[in-house]
Amino acid sequence: MATSCADAPAPAPACAGQLAKSKEQLDLASAYVSDAQYNRNVFFDTSPRAIRLYLLYNRRLPRALLYVFILLHLGLAICEEPAVWPLPPWATMLAELLCLHVFALRLLHYAKVIPPDKFWKDPKNICIIGVLALTLTDMIIYGALRAADVDSPRWSRVLRPLLLVNVTEGRQLRRAFRSIRNALPQIFSVFLLFIFSILLFSLMALKLFGKRGLKTADGAPYFSNYGDAVFDLYVLVTTANSPDVMMPAYNADSAFVIFFIVYILVNTYVFMSVFLAVVFNNYKKYLKEEVRQMVRAKRRKMARAFAVLREAGEDGEPRVGHDVWKRLVRLVQPDIGEARSELLWSVSDHARRGSVGPAAFAQLCDLLNIPVIALKSRPHPLGRLCPAFYGSTASRLLRRLVRHRAFALAYDVIIAINAVFIGLDEDDPEVAKSEWAFLALYVLEILLKLYVIEPRSFFSRHSFWNWFDAVIVAFALVATVVNAALESSGAYTSRQILDIVLILRVLRLVRVVDSVQRFRAIVNTLIRIGPAVLTFAQLILVVYYVFAVVGMELFKGQVRFFSDPDAPGRADCGNALLRGGAFARLQYCKNNFNDVLSSFVLLLELTVVNQWHVLSGGFAAVTHKSARIYFVLFHVTVVIVIINIFVAFVLEAFFLEYSLDKSDLHTELERRIEELRLGVAQEAAEDQPGDGEEEEDAKPQLLFKIASKSKPAAAVVMLFPFGRRVSCQGTGRWTLCCSACSRWTRSIGETAPATMKTWSSLTATGTFPTRPLTRLKTAFAINLDFC
Amino acid sequence: MATSCADAPAPAPACAGQLAKSKEQLDLASAYVSDAQYNRNVFFDTSPRAIRLYLLYNRRLPRALLYVFILLHLGLAICEEPAVWPLPPWATMLAELLCLHVFALRLLHYAKVIPPDKFWKDPKNICIIGVLALTLTDMIIYGALRAADVDSPRWSRVLRPLLLVNVTEGRQLRRAFRSIRNALPQIFSVFLLFIFSILLFSLMALKLFGKRGLKTADGAPYFSNYGDAVFDLYVLVTTANSPDVMMPAYNADSAFVIFFIVYILVNTYVFMSVFLAVVFNNYKKYLKEEVRQMVRAKRRKMARAFAVLREAGEDGEPRVGHDVWKRLVRLVQPDIGEARSELLWSVSDHARRGSVGPAAFAQLCDLLNIPVIALKSRPHPLGRLCPAFYGSTASRLLRRLVRHRAFALAYDVIIAINAVFIGLDEDDPEVAKSEWAFLALYVLEILLKLYVIEPRSFFSRHSFWNWFDAVIVAFALVATVVNAALESSGAYTSRQILDIVLILRVLRLVRVVDSVQRFRAIVNTLIRIGPAVLTFAQLILVVYYVFAVVGMELFKGQVRFFSDPDAPGRADCGNALLRGGAFARLQYCKNNFNDVLSSFVLLLELTVVNQWHVLSGGFAAVTHKSARIYFVLFHVTVVIVIINIFVAFVLEAFFLEYSLDKSDLHTELERRIEELRLGVAQEAAEDQPGDGEEEEDAKPQLLFKIASKSKPAAAVVMLFPFGRRVSCQGTGRWTLCCSACSRWTRSIGETAPATMKTWSSLTATGTFPTRPLTRLKTAFAINLDFC
Repeated sequence: MATSCADAPAPAPACAGQLAKSKEQLDLASAYVSDAQYNRNVFFDTSPRAIRLYLLYNRRLPRALLYVFILLHLGLAICEEPAVWPLPPWATMLAELLCLHVFALRLLHYAKVIPPDKFWKDPKNICIIGVLALTLTDMIIYGALRAADVDSPRWSRVLRPLLLVNVTEGRQLRRAFRSIRNALPQIFSVFLLFIFSILLFSLMALKLFGKRGLKTADGAPYFSNYGDAVFDLYVLVTTANSPDVMMPAYNADSAFVIFFIVYILVNTYVFMSVFLAVVFNNYKKYLKEEVRQMVRAKRRKMARAFAVLREAGEDGEPRVGHDVWKRLVRLVQPDIGEARSELLWSVSDHARRGSVGPAAFAQLCDLLNIPVIALKSRPHPLGRLCPAFYGSTASRLLRRLVRHRAFALAYDVIIAINAVFIGLDEDDPEVAKSEWAFLALYVLEILLKLYVIEPRSFFSRHSFWNWFDAVIVAFALVATVVNAALESSGAYTSRQILDIVLILRVLRLVRVVDSVQRFRAIVNTLIRIGPAVLTFAQLILVVYYVFAVVGMELFKGQVRFFSDPDAPGRADCGNALLRGGAFARLQYCKNNFNDVLSSFVLLLELTVVNQWHVLSGGFAAVTHKSARIYFVLFHVTVVIVIINIFVAFVLEAFFLEYSLDKSDLHTELERRIEELRLGVAQEAAEDQPGDGEEEEDAKPQLLFKIASKSKPAAAVVMLFPFGRRVSCQGTGRWTLCCSACSRWTRSIGETAPATMKTWSSLTATGTFPTRPLTRLKTAFAINLDFC
Repeated sequence: MATSCADAPAPAPACAGQLAKSKEQLDLASAYVSDAQYNRNVFFDTSPRAIRLYLLYNRRLPRALLYVFILLHLGLAICEEPAVWPLPPWATMLAELLCLHVFALRLLHYAKVIPPDKFWKDPKNICIIGVLALTLTDMIIYGALRAADVDSPRWSRVLRPLLLVNVTEGRQLRRAFRSIRNALPQIFSVFLLFIFSILLFSLMALKLFGKRGLKTADGAPYFSNYGDAVFDLYVLVTTANSPDVMMPAYNADSAFVIFFIVYILVNTYVFMSVFLAVVFNNYKKYLKEEVRQMVRAKRRKMARAFAVLREAGEDGEPRVGHDVWKRLVRLVQPDIGEARSELLWSVSDHARRGSVGPAAFAQLCDLLNIPVIALKSRPHPLGRLCPAFYGSTASRLLRRLVRHRAFALAYDVIIAINAVFIGLDEDDPEVAKSEWAFLALYVLEILLKLYVIEPRSFFSRHSFWNWFDAVIVAFALVATVVNAALESSGAYTSRQILDIVLILRVLRLVRVVDSVQRFRAIVNTLIRIGPAVLTFAQLILVVYYVFAVVGMELFKGQVRFFSDPDAPGRADCGNALLRGGAFARLQYCKNNFNDVLSSFVLLLELTVVNQWHVLSGGFAAVTHKSARIYFVLFHVTVVIVIINIFVAFVLEAFFLEYSLDKSDLHTELERRIEELRLGVAQEAAEDQPGDGEEEEDAKPQLLFKIASKSKPAAAVVMLFPFGRRVSCQGTGRWTLCCSACSRWTRSIGETAPATMKTWSSLTATGTFPTRPLTRLKTAFAINLDFC
């Protein structure tokens, strides 16, 4: 065993040095480890002051504040001309100034943290400074022109999303943009060929159809000039005008259909697939490269942290002792529990030498990243408050009933019946009454569950469906009561509240998804992919914002919507140029650039692609034909590049989920826990546990769960009974039992109670068979020695 | 060295046996090898008669005939009621009987080849027999009812595509169907969840919008009943009715747009991506499994072939000698050249023992599959016929000129100018005259190239662009002359011929693609993927055919198209039920099921998806609302399953192209050739070749090319000069020279002459440097010893 400094009879020089270096060096090391953990790549100054500033810089609060101000800054567009809710320019400009100050302050903070030469070499800092300077200039010009009563655009608004990209925390977003930029040359090659193909086909179409005097269904000339032919065929690639664009030719001569079939095969199917292939391929390639670089940077940082903390081990090798390690972990992740910290240590120091070498130390950042969720299983508060009542036969029967599968099944049936009732006319008084009954049933269900399951465990962070149920039912209860009160008071019944009630009613039905095993697996995969999609959402936000701002400058006020059905402008969107066109006929007037929210809706419609030629045609009609360029650019940027990235992203995420591969470390942690479990199994076999339920109800317990990436059905349960501590006081007993397992399982919500039962009933006999566990793969229980 | 039987002084028993077993056993072994080579999985009888029949069964002619009759059988739909070109029922039924006879005969042949128990256990044979029996029954019933003047459907036509799937040669197609079937359970899970989501959203839409009295742009009620709501929202998933379906709600209240945004995000983006991910993942998984099985079957067959041919080697190990091997290869692939056969032998027997063991023998089937193309480089016929003229200074200058890059560049410029002229009005007499000039220039180009390049090498099988040029220009010449003749005769000018002339003119411009390096790479990849897409085309054909036949039975004659613009039915497609609907207004009357070709066009439009709700709405209007089921089924089958398979297929093919990995064997062949090349290089260094061009013109030479999968730019050239044979007669000399290389390169059409020049000029000095060759990677020359 390595001697730790606390145990050493006389402080050896290394130990003295270690104790002396403590706080500042621990800060430095924790900064390195934290950077490695979150893949930050900041070359901060290593002076104690800079490190303290840096640790402050990385705190959650300042980061959250920054994002609040970024959102506020972006959100200003809602109140700026053209506005959804207009505010006077001085108000928005004041708010913007405030935001700019916050950004400048944050940047200043950053400048204090890293050496000046590094600061000025970093393009993202230059970019932020540039944006701030340009925005200020724009505000001054705008203000001056406003004072002189001249209208001018606020052009700097286009730059706002750049802040989102270039703040230190925008790492993921920058990575996404970088991978797009890297894919561009290859995409561009294909794009050129694709455009060449469209140009040739257009030339052919012009020659074939241009002189036949054909008319479209709208009576417009058909392929009569080259520019229109190119545009029409580009639209056909997006399929938005299929089959309309080919009908005149097809009606004139059946053989012409061959032209369009070949065109669609070549351009819509082959080229679009090639785009996806190229984007996907590059995305994967650069992602791999990025990951490789990240891993290298991580290793470097961990080596630096190790160099700071190392002390000479017994054989002269540099090592880090348990105490230092523990303090470091506490610094890096203050909310880590004692139990988890000990578990991680036991993985790092698997030879039980009391200290770790550089290799084992370097794992720390990854170990911290493996999501281990600690669930405290406490006795039910009712059991504590009135144990006589809670432990009575009737109460136990009720609890057993609620835990029974039939209970869940009964509620699935109730949901199905409820679905039918929702489908009926809600104005029928009988149906309206039934709604109260259903609501009562749902409330009862939640109350019953809360009676059985310890509330904090029921509402634990990862019990998605419990939260979902409770929130939906609570909202529905409130909304229904409010609605009923308004109705019975005979006063004005708010349609909005009724709408919300109706939506909540339908949402309750979603719960069925959790009852069907095959659905649950898919939904869990989707939920797990979810957070990573956030990066993608930011990417879309950046692109949409830029296009929206440009679109508003180009097209604001050209197309107007009149909500009054008798308004004179309703038929032509307030613009005579639209009269009789498809845009006005299809009642698209509300699809305009008159404020930022409308613009976003319109851009979403353009992303969906269908009818985008009608939309672009409308705006081209009220401005100029060249307005089409804006819409084509949007299509190329968003649909060809970004949506393909999204598809590549989802595909890759799914493949990862399917391919089941874990990092070595992940497996090491599991293996380690597995070893510990085996020890438990033997001990359990000796102890012969009795009726576990009472035991488990009586004692507080601690559960761990590794949020397993690989299999949604495999919940990793590390059982840490406080019973063990009690055992030190002489009353310890192993309590692994059926009801406990199935209950925890339910609260984790991932393993089917049926499978767990097999496991736990086998456990009750005191043996941990290997096979069923292999099938469950990651379900096991361990004991961490605390006494 | 192993003694071959021919050399052996006295025939050893093994040798005698080997000579004796010859013909029949070689036949058996060749059947095994050929099966392994083409991945056939036929458990044929091993009696000599059955083997002879089996070899006959696999001949190219009977297989080609079978496909002709399958196409004829499928094509009968063109002439059957509802027909494109109507024939009397007795004629089509007679043709069908003939086809059935051919299929039965082929099946009988197959039954003679394999043991009866295997035959009756094979589902594909049962399926063919079933289809034949059902078709006959249907024909009899139909004939009887016709005779009694009762109209009845020819329902057995639905079964026709099953023959395409179940013939022995439909292996790939069956594999595709199998992988779809294997993916179905997973797809089905996602599909159920997807449908559940649509049902919930529809319920919500019904509750939110149903009672607001909103109207669509057509004035129809908006989300007023559940069935319509489900259909409308299903259509929205396909984006076909976006944004129309949301406009009434959006116009009524902006907040409603949130419902549609969430809907589109969940169903259009997430679910459709999940479908692609699931299809792709399963496709890959089952493909891998299939490949593993194929490899196992291959090994088994090669082991059997080896067991038939083996003889005892010198150390008692079973081996196959060179002679037997050679005869076997000749039997398996009669058109293999002596040179290539020797090359393959040198790869198999790399230890030069004169015989191969089982492992080396097993490689044979894969070696045969590596596409090595032999190109004979002969002297130019003009050089042979009038050497004085062809070798004159002027002629040589001309040839050098044509080979120069400037020549290709000049023609690129000509093409660009031509593009402009095509864009001009062709009725202008000046423009019409210019066309003759361009045509003359193109003809001149081909003639010049033919003057320089040996014609058979110019028109070699893999010179895609030479063929393309020549065919297009030749057709254009003929069509232009015919057109001009018709025009000048003042008689009726055929518009069709003019159309063809116009198309050919534009097609000539496509050639530019070959001049741009980055385009060429993409196009080569596409061309290489091409043949594999054939399986996919068959898959589509099968599904389309079934849907077309069913569609014709359901909807024939309901919607009619009148080509006369004044026909009374033109406005409502001859069906009063369509009056005023979107279907008639958009002039979709020709999109009908009135014959098989129209049906195919309509199904293609449904595959493209856009406006499919209008098409389905039209057919629902003239029949019944439930007609929508047909269209939804088509969408699910073709768009969700098959198009995703297509995308998965293209993606996978592209990844393979990008990932550059070759089989070990492929590399072994290259390595072997590389070794041999080095020997050549040394010899060449000693020989000091002089001016190569004359040499090369004088002697016939043989080139090999491995159609490299990895790099389109890397043409593998195995140079086999007959010079070597001449050398045995005392005059041999190595002739590797610049002109030769660049000429061959050009005739292969894959390596840029510039790169080759570096190589060949270096060659002329007698050294093969390693680096440029590594860059070219696979360009080398070898000598096969023939004397």
